[in-house]
Amino acid sequence: MNHSSPSEGLVHIEGYGAARPFRGARVERTDVSRTAVRFRKAEGGGASKVLPNLREAIRAAGLKSGDTISFHHHLRNGDAVLNIVIAEAAAMGLRDLTVAASSLFAVHAPLVDHIQRGIVSRIYTAYMTGPVAEAISSGILRTPVVMQTHGGRARAIESGELHIDVAFIAAPAADDYGNLSGTQGRAACGPLGYAVVDAQYASCVIAVTDQLVAYPCGSIDITQEFVDFVVDVGSIGDPNGILSGTTRPTTDPVGLEIARQASSVIEASGYLVDDFSFQTGAGGVSLAVAAEVGKSMRRRGVRGSFAAGGVTGYLVDMLEQGLFRNLFDVQCFDLKAVQSYRDDSRHLAMSASMYANPNNRGAVANRLDAMILGAAEIDRNFNVNVTTGSSGNILGGSGGHADTAAGSKLSIVTTRLTARGGPKVVQKVRCITTPGETVDVVVTEFGIAVNPRRGELEHRLRGAGLMLKSIDTLCAEAARLAPVVPSAPADGRIVGVVEYRDGTVIDVLRMVA
Amino acid sequence: MNHSSPSEGLVHIEGYGAARPFRGARVERTDVSRTAVRFRKAEGGGASKVLPNLREAIRAAGLKSGDTISFHHHLRNGDAVLNIVIAEAAAMGLRDLTVAASSLFAVHAPLVDHIQRGIVSRIYTAYMTGPVAEAISSGILRTPVVMQTHGGRARAIESGELHIDVAFIAAPAADDYGNLSGTQGRAACGPLGYAVVDAQYASCVIAVTDQLVAYPCGSIDITQEFVDFVVDVGSIGDPNGILSGTTRPTTDPVGLEIARQASSVIEASGYLVDDFSFQTGAGGVSLAVAAEVGKSMRRRGVRGSFAAGGVTGYLVDMLEQGLFRNLFDVQCFDLKAVQSYRDDSRHLAMSASMYANPNNRGAVANRLDAMILGAAEIDRNFNVNVTTGSSGNILGGSGGHADTAAGSKLSIVTTRLTARGGPKVVQKVRCITTPGETVDVVVTEFGIAVNPRRGELEHRLRGAGLMLKSIDTLCAEAARLAPVVPSAPADGRIVGVVEYRDGTVIDVLRMVA
Repeated sequence: MNHSSPSEGLVHIEGYGAARPFRGARVERTDVSRTAVRFRKAEGGGASKVLPNLREAIRAAGLKSGDTISFHHHLRNGDAVLNIVIAEAAAMGLRDLTVAASSLFAVHAPLVDHIQRGIVSRIYTAYMTGPVAEAISSGILRTPVVMQTHGGRARAIESGELHIDVAFIAAPAADDYGNLSGTQGRAACGPLGYAVVDAQYASCVIAVTDQLVAYPCGSIDITQEFVDFVVDVGSIGDPNGILSGTTRPTTDPVGLEIARQASSVIEASGYLVDDFSFQTGAGGVSLAVAAEVGKSMRRRGVRGSFAAGGVTGYLVDMLEQGLFRNLFDVQCFDLKAVQSYRDDSRHLAMSASMYANPNNRGAVANRLDAMILGAAEIDRNFNVNVTTGSSGNILGGSGGHADTAAGSKLSIVTTRLTARGGPKVVQKVRCITTPGETVDVVVTEFGIAVNPRRGELEHRLRGAGLMLKSIDTLCAEAARLAPVVPSAPADGRIVGVVEYRDGTVIDVLRMVA
Repeated sequence: MNHSSPSEGLVHIEGYGAARPFRGARVERTDVSRTAVRFRKAEGGGASKVLPNLREAIRAAGLKSGDTISFHHHLRNGDAVLNIVIAEAAAMGLRDLTVAASSLFAVHAPLVDHIQRGIVSRIYTAYMTGPVAEAISSGILRTPVVMQTHGGRARAIESGELHIDVAFIAAPAADDYGNLSGTQGRAACGPLGYAVVDAQYASCVIAVTDQLVAYPCGSIDITQEFVDFVVDVGSIGDPNGILSGTTRPTTDPVGLEIARQASSVIEASGYLVDDFSFQTGAGGVSLAVAAEVGKSMRRRGVRGSFAAGGVTGYLVDMLEQGLFRNLFDVQCFDLKAVQSYRDDSRHLAMSASMYANPNNRGAVANRLDAMILGAAEIDRNFNVNVTTGSSGNILGGSGGHADTAAGSKLSIVTTRLTARGGPKVVQKVRCITTPGETVDVVVTEFGIAVNPRRGELEHRLRGAGLMLKSIDTLCAEAARLAPVVPSAPADGRIVGVVEYRDGTVIDVLRMVA
């Protein structure tokens, strides 16, 4: 799989349509629009919105073949809702559906069959792993999957570029008038940040729950005036797949060394002062960076403003230790985060739009000082791939990667030089998920490289005594350690389009044999 | 001042345009639209939105003569923001502005001068009292003031019928990126429910604060992605005018008797069972009804679902006593309510749209069991006037009156038979604020009358031993006690249009000599 750079002049992509090529990451203050929404108002009587089953809700919504349905991924690999909805739609004879799911996991494997049978013919998502990803890489979908960013998805929905006919919102708890909570019920998952935009802009909104509670559902994440129908389906998912166990930093020595170096970069960058803000993922190295940053903050007496993101118990600890005043949470990763969101008023929800949409009046990502990012690969231009694996197969996607890289003042990619015998610092990534112009530093076990676009940062890091290397040196060392025979560029048909957060096309994905 | 009934066939109203006559209160499940919004997205850098003064913010917003500006009334008679904004606009030479203020109070007297000088030429509001109301009744505004309901205002803004060019949002606290809080600062007022819709639909949003706090403003009532600019003006208002002292039920014997009777009606109505919901205003009789209802709930062991509205400390007490599980709060009336909203997660905010908009997927008002309403006058058709006084002068407006009357299962008007020598139960109200078809019961010190439309309710009340009278009997008794010489119908030009919550015209207001 090769990336098609803007200079290759993409204009029309079969099955996708006219593509605007990526023109750079800069967001300028220009006019934009949020789209109009047409929907059915409720009758005045305040009657219950509960329908007896999914089929009646789908009928009441008027869903028809060719329509677009949306799902959120707060239940992650425990989600049952996408599968039961599409199975029901299939049983009702619907075909040619577009699925706009904020992410897709292994649990969504039944989608493969729905694709093959023509029930589903288009997919938008920001992250994809497991059988659906593999099947799409091998070409089963008639049209290219559209890989968005979390912020880009919010932008596309708000602008009307991606219109949702019926949003299906998995709700851990719901009352009969459509107030939805993520903190109650056996499938409690925390805020419903990714679903908020769907609820606001879909023509029809169906809440799917397994815990109907008395009105009003006490802690409300999505309010009643956006919800048409409520269905109790018995189970919306497997709690074991929804939340990870308690998240912990890595204990692997190489990972810990990378984390220490990344923390040193933050400390030397000048950003680690009062009101420092920070985001990191839930991986072991990312959490180890958080641990090291926490130590630095305590040592220096720095009181941060906020930590953001998908939130783990580890960030909750930092909140409770007074290292940050607030958390901004679009999605919880573990039970401790869910409990904190439920009980601690300093732990604030944010919608996907508030988190990362480049086309609103200012996202939280714009206010990040330091962002810790992962990478499947990073190349000499600091472009990062978190979308495809070594054979060009889809194994992830941006999620908020490209959004936070663009928004943060200091974006740091932490990665080993090699993995599974192949280099991770490469000449050219197989797929550009996040453009190099938004990536400031890469930290490996072999050394740190600063993006040449950030001369002043490089100066500060050198001044602090950090030993820097060029990205070319890292790349050469990776090649030495894991000499890889470059695979022939894939020339199969386009099976995926990688949209940058602004909706321009930054890359395409080709069929893997 | 006379009301113009639908049968008089209003079509065109000078200065207002084509009027859709009121056709009944019923809300049917039909298609509606929320409008598109065009605005300027923020740059990607996360730069502060703070501008040095109001003039620069008004300039940056591109406000021009003929535009519409909006204000909310959470600071009530302590508000300084409307006055300083319009004074600044006047100083900048702007003219012919439309002011869409959710309510206007005595403190807004300087608006009279701005109207006379042509700075302000149109006004939309849901409630108006003091010099501005008097001046408009006397004809100083070139166009009719448009009197909306709280829910109707939200509907008009969301639908695009009332487009706001620049919303000025008085914010008791704000951070530099536009997160706004109603619970911090010296002018803390609680939720900003009436301002939420303005923030979501205005082309430009300027937050006006006197308390800039560090990012992120911890408790957020309006989020950053809706706010363009932030200005610190030194003082947004006088806390003494914003919140009343502790609200207390009446101690007047007549008021107490009316309250007891109203509570008996609720008890006999069949609605006072578990999950009972309730709203009342902040007046002494309304609070006395709440006190009586609370006693009944305790006696019967009823646990209610929610109380709603503008929230007083008295409703907070009922929450804390376990009589209700939750409060839905669009606006706080006193300090105790503000503190409760800040500290108690059971005390939930609601936007004006969630509260009372007839054109969304279901407002909280639709879920009310019992609503206690006041009246300046009520007539033989149960029409209620809370808009004009005995000389036809404007002295109020619907606020949420018409919304909650329509939404609640049991709407009870509590009123004395007479006041200041005139009858309050009359043949025909001078102005229809709330149509009689949505008013179920009137309770006076002389007796209780049930709307003949509610035969089954009358049956239940009689069955419970309540002595009912006809509305005609109440009217006759009022006339006997306070024989009033009917004033000649006003025939001056139309100075106000009373819109029902759906935007139809239910009445007009004429110039008072």
